[in-house]
Amino acid sequence: MSFAQILAEEVVRKGNGVCVGIDPRFESLPDALKPTAASSTVAHSPATRAAAYAQFGKTIVDIVAPLVPVVKPQAAFFEQLGPAGMIALAEVVQHAIQRGLIVILDGKRNDIGTTAEAYAEAYLGRGEKSGWGSDSLTVSPYLGHDSLEPFVKTAVARDAGIFVLVKTSNPGSGYLQDQLVGAGPERGTVYQHIADLVQKLNAPHLAPCGLGPVGAVVGATYPEQLAEMRLRLDSSWILIPGYGAQGGTAKDVALGFRSDGLGALVNSSRGIIFAHSLARYSGAASWEAAVEQATRDMIDELSAHISKPHL
Amino acid sequence: MSFAQILAEEVVRKGNGVCVGIDPRFESLPDALKPTAASSTVAHSPATRAAAYAQFGKTIVDIVAPLVPVVKPQAAFFEQLGPAGMIALAEVVQHAIQRGLIVILDGKRNDIGTTAEAYAEAYLGRGEKSGWGSDSLTVSPYLGHDSLEPFVKTAVARDAGIFVLVKTSNPGSGYLQDQLVGAGPERGTVYQHIADLVQKLNAPHLAPCGLGPVGAVVGATYPEQLAEMRLRLDSSWILIPGYGAQGGTAKDVALGFRSDGLGALVNSSRGIIFAHSLARYSGAASWEAAVEQATRDMIDELSAHISKPHL
Repeated sequence: MSFAQILAEEVVRKGNGVCVGIDPRFESLPDALKPTAASSTVAHSPATRAAAYAQFGKTIVDIVAPLVPVVKPQAAFFEQLGPAGMIALAEVVQHAIQRGLIVILDGKRNDIGTTAEAYAEAYLGRGEKSGWGSDSLTVSPYLGHDSLEPFVKTAVARDAGIFVLVKTSNPGSGYLQDQLVGAGPERGTVYQHIADLVQKLNAPHLAPCGLGPVGAVVGATYPEQLAEMRLRLDSSWILIPGYGAQGGTAKDVALGFRSDGLGALVNSSRGIIFAHSLARYSGAASWEAAVEQATRDMIDELSAHISKPHL
Repeated sequence: MSFAQILAEEVVRKGNGVCVGIDPRFESLPDALKPTAASSTVAHSPATRAAAYAQFGKTIVDIVAPLVPVVKPQAAFFEQLGPAGMIALAEVVQHAIQRGLIVILDGKRNDIGTTAEAYAEAYLGRGEKSGWGSDSLTVSPYLGHDSLEPFVKTAVARDAGIFVLVKTSNPGSGYLQDQLVGAGPERGTVYQHIADLVQKLNAPHLAPCGLGPVGAVVGATYPEQLAEMRLRLDSSWILIPGYGAQGGTAKDVALGFRSDGLGALVNSSRGIIFAHSLARYSGAASWEAAVEQATRDMIDELSAHISKPHL
């Protein structure tokens, strides 16, 4: 079954489009997971930190697997630790797949020709189908259409998907993405131009749910553009970062969904995985309990503004 | 000493601006390095392939270290093999640093805020200063100026550098990069707009050689734009891919250099590392001899069109 359809069925089964971002930062880990070695050199070595990241990531997976359809490990935080971090990343990805979650690797990769193919081989496809065994990868479009095509080809062949950066959640995203390009009826912003490319890449590969393997990243912090992209990208899953900690509300992200409650995934990272440090969850019995409660609260907040997903 | 100055001194010392791209592809490895295990499952396992990549990469490093100033491992090919590939990548990087080479990790990373900081922590800085111990990283600018600033900050603090994608060598690079944006005197292409950002980021950090820590990637396949970028980016090292296999000639890449023979690095990957499979080197005594001869030939080809580098 194609990635877009698997995603639709899992969102329906779990009853929500929540994606939990696994973004480990050493300083923010629960005290219980911080190494307590006598020597601070050992406590802060990449191998010790990586082991803590793996344990943290796998515990997050165990807590959220019954509740949400998708997790999104952020490659950067694992890469920061060098090879030891990458081993931890692979463990987290594998564990999430085993627990029945869909895994989007947030790597924002991009390259050309056979190098783009290598990235696709690395991240697109479960189990031994790819180097890391993940279902999906975030991809940057700066290099042009021919840098995306190898990803689409591999994604289609392996029931995997990609999410192309379209309009990102950061304050400076407009620096390039909001620039006006083209002329006449084609005139529009860079992000609209990229959205049209995404739409074109999806066209030959639509699943029964009406969506294709090429998703788009559109930030919750730009609700007007999110609503616009929902209409323009009618064959794409939209991955929405920027909920919670970055300022996006449930009402904002609701604009990214179709009327059937499908078509979007709302990511929260810090607001869930580091819930133990939020005043709202200071009464939780454990850091794990705080994570579970924050996940349930996010699901409830979204369901107040978004239709119950159905096929 | 700052990255830009170290690079200038090394280019002068070696007498050329050649960068050897380490892009291992299993099918293209010399027969001597292809595993000959009885079982093809073992021969093709990620661990076996990764060991071959490490051996291949380190041998390339040994051959080219006396001849050129810089190597550029391509992350994608190592990532393709999962964590085993990443261990091999770290070995190759470390070996290159030990042999006195400057290492540019070609990862085309990009992200925002603390995630961009994590990538900078991962790749910018020798030895234990960063996760991988490399000197420099290629970075994509799609997310805007605030996605580049954390990289610049870390680069400056650690005598490291970045190379921002400006005008890439692929046929489809114009899809986004050649679009016209802005109005009035500011009107120009996306790549010009990004070049101006690079120039601005460099301004506070110029080394005695007149160049800063923020380099630019401009493809040899667009010589006119390369000449234009040399003038516009007068404080940047320009990393030039696309030489040889992709079609760029020595005359083309010469346009990226300053009159003192500094300011650009010309990358060749396949044309050097897989020289053993080129008709031109079919008479070489070994694959290693072919690599050495191809490197020397490239140095000679460039020196016919570019001034001997001097400070």
